[in-house]
Amino acid sequence: MYNLTQPLKTVAMAKPNKLATIMGERQHTWSEMQDRVSRLAKGLRDLGVNQGDRVAMLSLNSDRYLEYYYAVWWSGGLVVPLNTRWSATENAYALNDSGAKILLVDRAFSLQLDDIQKEANGVKSVIFCDDGEVPAGMLDYEALIRGYQPCDDAERSGDDLAGIYYTGGTTGFPKGVMLSHQAIWYNNVVNSVNVNYNRGGAYLHAAPMFHLADGAYSGATMSSGMTHVFLPTFDPQRAMDMVEQYSVTHTILVPTMWGMVLSHPQFDPEKLKSLHTCIYGASPMPEGLLSQLLEYFPNLNIIQGYGQTEMGPVITNLNAEDHREGFKQGGKLRSAGVAVPGVEVRICDENGHDLANGEVGEIYARSPGAMSGYWNLPKQTEQTLINGWVKTGDGAYRDEDGFIFIVDRVKDMIVSGGENVFSAEVENAISTHPDVEAVAVIGIPSDKWGEAVHAIVIPKRDANLTEDSIFSHTKGKIANYKQPRSVSFREEAFPLSGAGKVLKRELREPYWQDKTSAVN
Amino acid sequence: MYNLTQPLKTVAMAKPNKLATIMGERQHTWSEMQDRVSRLAKGLRDLGVNQGDRVAMLSLNSDRYLEYYYAVWWSGGLVVPLNTRWSATENAYALNDSGAKILLVDRAFSLQLDDIQKEANGVKSVIFCDDGEVPAGMLDYEALIRGYQPCDDAERSGDDLAGIYYTGGTTGFPKGVMLSHQAIWYNNVVNSVNVNYNRGGAYLHAAPMFHLADGAYSGATMSSGMTHVFLPTFDPQRAMDMVEQYSVTHTILVPTMWGMVLSHPQFDPEKLKSLHTCIYGASPMPEGLLSQLLEYFPNLNIIQGYGQTEMGPVITNLNAEDHREGFKQGGKLRSAGVAVPGVEVRICDENGHDLANGEVGEIYARSPGAMSGYWNLPKQTEQTLINGWVKTGDGAYRDEDGFIFIVDRVKDMIVSGGENVFSAEVENAISTHPDVEAVAVIGIPSDKWGEAVHAIVIPKRDANLTEDSIFSHTKGKIANYKQPRSVSFREEAFPLSGAGKVLKRELREPYWQDKTSAVN
Repeated sequence: MYNLTQPLKTVAMAKPNKLATIMGERQHTWSEMQDRVSRLAKGLRDLGVNQGDRVAMLSLNSDRYLEYYYAVWWSGGLVVPLNTRWSATENAYALNDSGAKILLVDRAFSLQLDDIQKEANGVKSVIFCDDGEVPAGMLDYEALIRGYQPCDDAERSGDDLAGIYYTGGTTGFPKGVMLSHQAIWYNNVVNSVNVNYNRGGAYLHAAPMFHLADGAYSGATMSSGMTHVFLPTFDPQRAMDMVEQYSVTHTILVPTMWGMVLSHPQFDPEKLKSLHTCIYGASPMPEGLLSQLLEYFPNLNIIQGYGQTEMGPVITNLNAEDHREGFKQGGKLRSAGVAVPGVEVRICDENGHDLANGEVGEIYARSPGAMSGYWNLPKQTEQTLINGWVKTGDGAYRDEDGFIFIVDRVKDMIVSGGENVFSAEVENAISTHPDVEAVAVIGIPSDKWGEAVHAIVIPKRDANLTEDSIFSHTKGKIANYKQPRSVSFREEAFPLSGAGKVLKRELREPYWQDKTSAVN
Repeated sequence: MYNLTQPLKTVAMAKPNKLATIMGERQHTWSEMQDRVSRLAKGLRDLGVNQGDRVAMLSLNSDRYLEYYYAVWWSGGLVVPLNTRWSATENAYALNDSGAKILLVDRAFSLQLDDIQKEANGVKSVIFCDDGEVPAGMLDYEALIRGYQPCDDAERSGDDLAGIYYTGGTTGFPKGVMLSHQAIWYNNVVNSVNVNYNRGGAYLHAAPMFHLADGAYSGATMSSGMTHVFLPTFDPQRAMDMVEQYSVTHTILVPTMWGMVLSHPQFDPEKLKSLHTCIYGASPMPEGLLSQLLEYFPNLNIIQGYGQTEMGPVITNLNAEDHREGFKQGGKLRSAGVAVPGVEVRICDENGHDLANGEVGEIYARSPGAMSGYWNLPKQTEQTLINGWVKTGDGAYRDEDGFIFIVDRVKDMIVSGGENVFSAEVENAISTHPDVEAVAVIGIPSDKWGEAVHAIVIPKRDANLTEDSIFSHTKGKIANYKQPRSVSFREEAFPLSGAGKVLKRELREPYWQDKTSAVN
């Protein structure tokens, strides 16, 4: 119980001969997967992994990434999945901080390894988990599995730590979130019922596997005994091909990814007809995109998950029926749904007092999924984890039906002329302009207001968009003090975090370089 | 966390002014309910309830039954819900065994009280939780609530016991199942996702509230903040009226109850159109009934739950899509579905060794929902709860897709001529006879075979059914040694347990009176 290897053992017993993993030609049954995991675990132990030791991985998605998670848990160690979008310096920081002595890399990241190891020299063994020639000085993943006999499961559970998940992409300072077996177990259970756990089917790992968004549904897939299919990195063409070829039923596709699929010249709804449930996060689904999706796939269950690593990650869900009926429900579609069972949510003012419904404050969340704290950061832990409650840093309000509307990161709030402006509200107003493809609103330095509301707009192709056209569009839609004071245009996509959130920190940076930023 | 009063506090904060309970004219909002619960808790403490003390209730369904559960938990006590179908002797046993000093009764059961108290004299205070004149010597429920101020929640949690649930209806000897806050909490969470937790709506308590089948979905309703509607005791006409009047979306109706609804002269599918999800248990849904139901209500989600009190109670679910597609799936409809997330299921031989798929053995189950043990029965606990695993006493096999098929209570298995006969299999064969309304198969004494397969059949109204017609119907459908050797006919319904299971013990009794029964 509360043990993360249990679902693997359960499904290996219940359906030993059904397919567990599909990585192109390389396919394994559940009993094969359990066998490989327990051999790899033995190999890890032989390389020095004792109870509680950290083992890192830096790789694109693959069946071996899944095996890594379960083998580390089986061995008694802690996973440290590194962010494929981070710089060598950032990942070196995570390696040093976690004290991982073993690192698994695929070919794509083996090239970065020299740069990482310049700054992180604690890694004693590097395991090459890709096909083809093994680079000098690295161990061969498959040889390791072949070379060892299965070992007994360490059966860590409950409050025993299962992993350290580095976060901080949007706020700058990397923090290692400690999650216990129980925390991830709870998330797997609550998510597996959301993904319709007893249907069989196949889950496509389309989102990066180092991230807990995929982790949560990967765990749910395991609890459900569905087949895992892997897309090394997102590509709309390959995603469509895989869904078609392997009759994929479940996946995570954020709105941006859906946009790329629907506008792809090869898009054909017939190819995707096996899809049963599609989860997304990071931001609400634009209504235009949703209605298009439901027109193509009227029976598709579209579920929004909102959460954060510190909660392991799930906090709220907006479920499939809420999406279908979203238009009838007075704007529920703009919400993140309601707290999932077992998660408590409060909306608090800066002193931690509960606010009334409709008032904007910070989301506090508590559940068995919450982190044990930040690794090596007792002070940050104390500031964030209070009596079991995680201060999320997200600003939100709750409506009379218990639906949570995220307005902004508390840190992304713009303080202009003494008034609080939530960039999400300004973004919503601008996004309804017919020529706007995407928009991000930030606060920039202003002698007059402290911060001024600034909009960065990506126009639709061939649109001829002007600052004035934006100004006149938002006039009357939002209060005067929330109006954008300036607009800049760009063509390239916004920088995104691993979770698919716009990295506002990067957008703000050029404006604040020589200033003391009011925001972190 | 892992605390049963938390969902009440959460929903009272999130939706204070929405309706929590509807008992005809008597209706309370969530903030009113929390207020009443905390006042009643104070009253209970004043009557002597300390941490861990037991408080019993014997009543038909009502809003006050719900308040009782939460007030006892709020006070720090343990609930002891008594079985409304038990005799005075059986309930006196439960009172004596649990040591409850406080008992709540409604008018229907206040009449039984003298008989109960003849055998159970430990009860110091009786609270009358019904309307009208309060019988002499009893305390008035509403006066108690009016007379006290709200108190602080005891906030018991985790392994702290929450209640003692007496079971044993089908096997004879009453045993008090100890369930912790965590055990019930887990069941609430896993069931709340099954009932589509964030839809709003209303749950009709149509099944008896002393039973954990209702308890599980009542807890789910609480976690979801749906409105509770109460039917004191099942009646098809009143059930239909309530669904219509209060737009009930969720309820528990076992197949027998559905049969009564559909064959009722006032039945009109229009009246029930608000129903969204309907849970049932106790036995598989007959295919004829299911196809009728889906014809009337094509969008109704029909979910089967299988479990037992010792598991708090849920073990497996057969979900809505499995019901819709049941006919296509090669008989999955006859199964109890798959283990719900977080529940581990094994099928074991008599020595506790795992059996292969397809082989019939006893279901062992383990989850955070499992009991802490039997109250005052260390030996029975030791025999039933082994290393966290509950031996369910249910015989079953698992198919290649992980679906569990219950064949019988291990104790109900018929041993005839050295062969094991599962009565469920014989019942299935007989039930397809067009003139059979219901059937129960038992073993009766036989000098030749030890036990002989005997069928008790309720014929359809106006049918002219003979023993020979049954014999020729089952011939070829099941092996020779499984064929019924004799048939008796009856008109009245079978005796049912609180969970809606046919009480085979009672059916067997007349045949075994003068014999030493091979079965208990």
